Amino acid sequence: MSPNNRTGDKHDRILDAALKVFARHGFFNSKVSEIARVAGVADGTIYLYFKNKDDILIKAFEETMTMLITRLDEALGALTHPLEKLRTYIRLHFSIVRAHRDLAEVITVELRQSTKFMKEYKNEKFQEYLQRISMIIREGKDQGMIRPEIQPGIIKRGLFGMIDELTLLFVLSKKYSVDQLDQVADQVAEILIRGIQTEKGRATLEEMRKTSGAANGNV
Amino acid sequence: MSPNNRTGDKHDRILDAALKVFARHGFFNSKVSEIARVAGVADGTIYLYFKNKDDILIKAFEETMTMLITRLDEALGALTHPLEKLRTYIRLHFSIVRAHRDLAEVITVELRQSTKFMKEYKNEKFQEYLQRISMIIREGKDQGMIRPEIQPGIIKRGLFGMIDELTLLFVLSKKYSVDQLDQVADQVAEILIRGIQTEKGRATLEEMRKTSGAANGNV
Repeated sequence: MSPNNRTGDKHDRILDAALKVFARHGFFNSKVSEIARVAGVADGTIYLYFKNKDDILIKAFEETMTMLITRLDEALGALTHPLEKLRTYIRLHFSIVRAHRDLAEVITVELRQSTKFMKEYKNEKFQEYLQRISMIIREGKDQGMIRPEIQPGIIKRGLFGMIDELTLLFVLSKKYSVDQLDQVADQVAEILIRGIQTEKGRATLEEMRKTSGAANGNV
Repeated sequence: MSPNNRTGDKHDRILDAALKVFARHGFFNSKVSEIARVAGVADGTIYLYFKNKDDILIKAFEETMTMLITRLDEALGALTHPLEKLRTYIRLHFSIVRAHRDLAEVITVELRQSTKFMKEYKNEKFQEYLQRISMIIREGKDQGMIRPEIQPGIIKRGLFGMIDELTLLFVLSKKYSVDQLDQVADQVAEILIRGIQTEKGRATLEEMRKTSGAANGNV
């Protein structure tokens, strides 16, 4: 379950292979033997690292969430304006979707069809990721940048629903290009920011952009 | 399949009963015999109206969508301002969720777990319902009320994702009250309107509210 450094490489190869296989055949039709073949390991090797196919899916999901949270906190740490943090959150989410399309497909399409996963698995990493949204909203309200009546819980779930649905559209529609995904991220961020900002929030954000000119290059 | 007026009552009773049973036991664990018992009809009667359990679910869904579109078009027909139409759309959606909680639960929780439904069923009524959003956005852009860069397709899917996720939260969380659902609808509408409106859109909407004072009572 906890591979040491020497074998960490195989562990990661198995996860990468699993995502490819899940995305190609769907989770339920995927076979562990096929994952082993794609990873270039013996079937039995997989069971040194994972209990079963569900365990592989959950581990792949958790490792991606951990990576996402780490990158998010790094990116947010460099920013001061809550509205700019929100924009960065949205951009980062879509950039990870773009870079890990197989995983995005498995999460948005396959996972939500798994009753076991949806109902029995206590998804703490995911909650932690969403929690970052409500933290930013509270910070913005405290600083007078976000309207006082805005409810962090509604934004947290509503924003996630919005980006998840648009991710699903990207993943399912093969004609939808990577450039379009960037446009989607920018449009979602712009709408949300205008939708929740105070006049002070708007003015300070504009001021920041004028002086730095770098506000568009955070992610 | 097409009950006449004399038997339409049984048809509707079966649909109502099915939603109760699906919501209570989950779609997959529900039995046709249980639906018959709750509807107060003989098991065989159900097959006079429906092919099987999947058919009941699809018919229930389609009838609700038809009712929703009819009510939506009635409500929108009384309005002229595209941003006010958008607010009414969002409010109406949540008010239907509130009035048909069993159906909302079945749709948001059960349907998305059905691969057959998600992938094989061509969901035309649902597409028609979503299409109303992009129509409103286009109208608003034409009238200079909505910013020209706003993409109707992004709003259509993004807004649906947002209200669907918030509906899921309402349906799954028993402590979430009906009053809170109204607040959610108002907050979502307010954020979206501010997020996409032009200065002209904002000013005309404010003007309308001042003169009518009735803008809050459309649904």
